Amino acid sequence: MKYSIGVDMGGTNTDLGLVSANGNIVQRRNLPTNAYTDFSLYIRDFMREVDAMLADQQAIDGEPLTLEGIGVGAPNGNFYTGCVDNAPNLTMKGVLDFGKEIHKYRDVPVVLSNDANAAAYGEYVYGGAKGMKHFIMFTLGTGVGSGVVVDGRLVHGSTGAAGELGHAILYQHGRPCSCGREGCLETYTSARGIVQTYCELKGIPVSADVTSKMIGELAHQGDPVALKTWETVGDQLGLAMANAVTFSAPEALFLMGGPAQVGEPLLKPLRAAFEKYLLNIFAGTCQIRMSELKANEVAILGAAALLKMK
Amino acid sequence: MKYSIGVDMGGTNTDLGLVSANGNIVQRRNLPTNAYTDFSLYIRDFMREVDAMLADQQAIDGEPLTLEGIGVGAPNGNFYTGCVDNAPNLTMKGVLDFGKEIHKYRDVPVVLSNDANAAAYGEYVYGGAKGMKHFIMFTLGTGVGSGVVVDGRLVHGSTGAAGELGHAILYQHGRPCSCGREGCLETYTSARGIVQTYCELKGIPVSADVTSKMIGELAHQGDPVALKTWETVGDQLGLAMANAVTFSAPEALFLMGGPAQVGEPLLKPLRAAFEKYLLNIFAGTCQIRMSELKANEVAILGAAALLKMK
Repeated sequence: MKYSIGVDMGGTNTDLGLVSANGNIVQRRNLPTNAYTDFSLYIRDFMREVDAMLADQQAIDGEPLTLEGIGVGAPNGNFYTGCVDNAPNLTMKGVLDFGKEIHKYRDVPVVLSNDANAAAYGEYVYGGAKGMKHFIMFTLGTGVGSGVVVDGRLVHGSTGAAGELGHAILYQHGRPCSCGREGCLETYTSARGIVQTYCELKGIPVSADVTSKMIGELAHQGDPVALKTWETVGDQLGLAMANAVTFSAPEALFLMGGPAQVGEPLLKPLRAAFEKYLLNIFAGTCQIRMSELKANEVAILGAAALLKMK
Repeated sequence: MKYSIGVDMGGTNTDLGLVSANGNIVQRRNLPTNAYTDFSLYIRDFMREVDAMLADQQAIDGEPLTLEGIGVGAPNGNFYTGCVDNAPNLTMKGVLDFGKEIHKYRDVPVVLSNDANAAAYGEYVYGGAKGMKHFIMFTLGTGVGSGVVVDGRLVHGSTGAAGELGHAILYQHGRPCSCGREGCLETYTSARGIVQTYCELKGIPVSADVTSKMIGELAHQGDPVALKTWETVGDQLGLAMANAVTFSAPEALFLMGGPAQVGEPLLKPLRAAFEKYLLNIFAGTCQIRMSELKANEVAILGAAALLKMK
């Protein structure tokens, strides 16, 4: 049997999964990323988990297995270099060369990209974007990420850092962003941005007690300020999505991540705004869809999917 | 010798050129597009001009020539269908199928795209984008067009209409656009948008007596309102360009068209704004450059270049 390893490297945890050829995660392990300051020790333990999953699976299958490669999704992951470069949220500093370090243990293909690109490719290989040639994935979470597929290929651009639509400026001179600029989409449609909008509409100071999940629950209970919050967010995201369509004329825009789970309170105004802001020549050519992958699987499946890239 | 035909189909005129293998326009002809309401008569006369150019060139070369194909750049030109669909500025109505009609006369490859896409591809094959894998062309004129190249391929998207960055919304609830929406980049950085900004700054009504060329000349004479106009336009275009970089991380953004000819009064504030609005991870990775093709050659060369597409 053939398997690949998909790795979701976050600042706190690293989730590893053994993925079967048809896209099932058959084994899972994890590692506390933030317990490491030495990258070679991290990879040593990482490969121990890989070996343990392979051994367990071989015992289950009762026959030798083939490992097709290791795919890694990581913040600041660069597809071209195969490195994570100075990620601000990692305890391991500098340039982390996954391929070089992994190859000390196993001679298998290693592919790396950032987490949103991996999610987009996971949707393409295993999810709702199967068979599509042009689509864009928007991931709403702590930040807003995106992955762009054009002609069936993930767009990495000249630097490897393409697909940063969360940092397209939606409002010139808008909210300050963690990137040092103002008005980025992320400052409005990330979990934090949504909380800020709610607190502004409510006239209360932004506090850690308010979460986007809570605003979602309030909306389902009919709370008018919560509903207005999602309307505002839907309008902003709809505008950003309509603008993205002018670039690559995709068949679909996919949405995933915690805040997107609220469902209709966001999706209804989002679809209305998208139609309103969409250039007429694109009317009816592009759908907004939810990711079809499970929230706790998409990162691992996406990372494994990177190995399928042409 | 091998030649191709490049055709720039505008609402008023159709310019045809015979292009040598190394990108020189060796013969030119034209046809009054707006004199035709019947597409088959238009193509009949169009092919007469093609035949005349081929005959003239054969006489000059003193040997038989090979025609590699006919490339057409046209407003509303759709790469996938090879048709111009209901272009609002043409006297010929309906769906104009160039390939089908031309093949009644000659069995040669026919490729068609919109004018901005053709310009982008011309820059790639014959101009300053040679050897680049990722770049975007912005054409400033009556409208604002764009052509996007990703991984060395022109992006047509799922519908054939990708690369409409002139209709990305820069300011929500901004100036009304001819497309029926508000705030499109085109309403600020097209010739008409620039005139409007000048008139607003000057406090005079918009009139046909004011042209973007005149505002360019005034700027070079040190006129403060004209200089302020180009500063404003540079800031707006710089913001749009910085946003475009988040999509495909291009090596360069090219600029062409009448208003761009003003030079430094636009380029200086444009470059400053671009740097200001660019996400830090892209700093130093993307240049703003002027098209290296001659203004009166780019459309024909771009159309001919479409034949080189993989």
